Amino acid sequence: MYVKGVNLGNWLVLEKWMNPALFEGTTAEDEYYLPTQLSKDVYEARIRIHRSEYITERDFAYIKSVGMNAVRIPVPYFVFGDCPPFLGCVKELDKAFAWAEKYGLVILIDLHTVPGSQNGFDNGGISGVCKWAQQPESVEFTLKVLERLSERYGNRSSLWGIEIVNEPITENIWNLMDIQSRYKPEDPEMAKGSAPVTLEFLRKFYVEAYRRMRKYLPKEKVVVFHDGFELKAWKDFMREEEFKNVVLDTHLYLMTAEAEGCGRSKEDYITYVHDHYKKDIAEMQEYFPVICGEWSLFNSYACGIDTAGGQSPVNGVMATEDLLSADKKKELYRALAEAQLEAWNQGIGYFYWNYKLLLDTVNEPGWIGWDSWDFGKCAAQGWFPVEYK
Amino acid sequence: MYVKGVNLGNWLVLEKWMNPALFEGTTAEDEYYLPTQLSKDVYEARIRIHRSEYITERDFAYIKSVGMNAVRIPVPYFVFGDCPPFLGCVKELDKAFAWAEKYGLVILIDLHTVPGSQNGFDNGGISGVCKWAQQPESVEFTLKVLERLSERYGNRSSLWGIEIVNEPITENIWNLMDIQSRYKPEDPEMAKGSAPVTLEFLRKFYVEAYRRMRKYLPKEKVVVFHDGFELKAWKDFMREEEFKNVVLDTHLYLMTAEAEGCGRSKEDYITYVHDHYKKDIAEMQEYFPVICGEWSLFNSYACGIDTAGGQSPVNGVMATEDLLSADKKKELYRALAEAQLEAWNQGIGYFYWNYKLLLDTVNEPGWIGWDSWDFGKCAAQGWFPVEYK
Repeated sequence: MYVKGVNLGNWLVLEKWMNPALFEGTTAEDEYYLPTQLSKDVYEARIRIHRSEYITERDFAYIKSVGMNAVRIPVPYFVFGDCPPFLGCVKELDKAFAWAEKYGLVILIDLHTVPGSQNGFDNGGISGVCKWAQQPESVEFTLKVLERLSERYGNRSSLWGIEIVNEPITENIWNLMDIQSRYKPEDPEMAKGSAPVTLEFLRKFYVEAYRRMRKYLPKEKVVVFHDGFELKAWKDFMREEEFKNVVLDTHLYLMTAEAEGCGRSKEDYITYVHDHYKKDIAEMQEYFPVICGEWSLFNSYACGIDTAGGQSPVNGVMATEDLLSADKKKELYRALAEAQLEAWNQGIGYFYWNYKLLLDTVNEPGWIGWDSWDFGKCAAQGWFPVEYK
Repeated sequence: MYVKGVNLGNWLVLEKWMNPALFEGTTAEDEYYLPTQLSKDVYEARIRIHRSEYITERDFAYIKSVGMNAVRIPVPYFVFGDCPPFLGCVKELDKAFAWAEKYGLVILIDLHTVPGSQNGFDNGGISGVCKWAQQPESVEFTLKVLERLSERYGNRSSLWGIEIVNEPITENIWNLMDIQSRYKPEDPEMAKGSAPVTLEFLRKFYVEAYRRMRKYLPKEKVVVFHDGFELKAWKDFMREEEFKNVVLDTHLYLMTAEAEGCGRSKEDYITYVHDHYKKDIAEMQEYFPVICGEWSLFNSYACGIDTAGGQSPVNGVMATEDLLSADKKKELYRALAEAQLEAWNQGIGYFYWNYKLLLDTVNEPGWIGWDSWDFGKCAAQGWFPVEYK
């Protein structure tokens, strides 16, 4: 099966910029601090209504209708509800499996956050902190969550697989993105000692996770591991007979390409996609089936400003008007979609990031350009080539 | 312009059955009683998150992309925020106008509830109570709201018009639907004296409303009045030169056809639509431009049970399994859509009820059949013929 999917990000793992109303009246920048600034009742009311409305059965019907066959669902480490004040979300995940079965979609469960954070991103759950790999009890907790997910969902017909952990950050990207100045920690004391995850640690952790997941996960379900932003570092990894049906996940964003020196024009982006994404995936596909688990049409050129690797209006960086005509924008996005889809074609498929956002580009024009993160808006406006079923 | 639209019901005026999570943990059956069973903070948190997620800019992009050109937006009498504990919603409505302008849609504002209720339906705001027309201060309040809406939105380019009041109930339908046993009042004392609205009252009220709205509403914007479920009672109404650009709104549901004796089969429904809806609209189009402001594909045959005029699982009536194959269901709904669209074609257009619901037919199979109320699901599953742009 060639995977054509969307990420259901911001449903069970929050990102403030995608859904500002959830964070209204607080200064919290991430999921970790949200409950510290709201009463228990209000926090729970917000989360419950959000979860009940953001993704529902009708989204699965829609996703199927636009020719997709898969969804990647980010889940938090507190998915099982054992880390108060956070609310577990297996009920929501259970429902999603039933919806997927009805509409003929498959699910990749993606463990998107871990205690202490694996990357220091806001979407890692706690901005500016990256200490998970240094905390043996957090690592063990993570392995247990992976076992439990494998046990609970391993035999669901609509399970495609489980991804061990999303975007553990390694040294190069840690420096490139200048994590500690970009994501200021709320509590510098807690952030002290934050550091990138080593490839050495990751290799050991992935092998351990694979073994513990496979106890429950049938062989035909895939185990997915993220490349840690080092796509080519895995050629000698898991070569042994023991490892079956393992998929390599890489996340390729044009904003990262920009940070690596790619120019801000349609031609530059397309050349970069061809020379790097396409070539690199083809190269790694010799070792693992490769999936591009996150990508989008987002780029600085369409925003009309240098977004410095995706710095958003949340960070005070914003365009003031739409610089491209609707036709020009459509032409640009279509070309970037086609080039990238061709690159993913060297592997076994992709998941667009993200299926849905709640940004309002009309009443808050600073968000113009950021709407390309929203698959629904891309499909509706012909930015993404969709085959209606 | 031929109007092809959807209703944005359950966004600013709640209906419990469309969105059970909002009412969770309460026994409230309607919007009026919801805040009496929740703390102020929790009530407000639920409402705010609901409003921020249920309808957003991306829905307007989607609605445009499926070939629609209009939305009808039900608003409550407390739209201006002057009836605590209810939260006003002009901010949301303001945003909707900006979205409509961007995506090229027009808006019909529909005053869906009034103090004391005009129909006793749950969607009138307070189940089992129908006393508005008997309360001069409630009637005056309503007229003021209509003036204020006309003043605030009269000059917005995306305003198509304003509908005076949704579904004031008159005698025949009051008896046919047996309102007082179907919608049990929470407070029988408050409901005492409830009675259908007379056509006489309505005529006077509509004229008064027209005059007060036109002070602010430019001539090119339509004033819409609902037929009170008596489509043919308006032939001698507003014949004078004074009344300009007035549209007659009728709501035609197959469940009401059933209650009036239509059989439960595809052929029966189609014959009924042809002999009644199509003929009656053509007849009344001689007097007013006629719009079918609410209709759907919902019917008892597809549900596999007699829904007795739309009695839902909320009322304890439910099917236990899907009796029609996916293909049969699609064929049925397509045929009913085509027949009804042909009938609306005798007038000036239609609004489907409803754009969106949050029902889960997979995890709560009692809702099977009720998903046809959801335009999004209908479009995604090919039940409704959609022209993707």
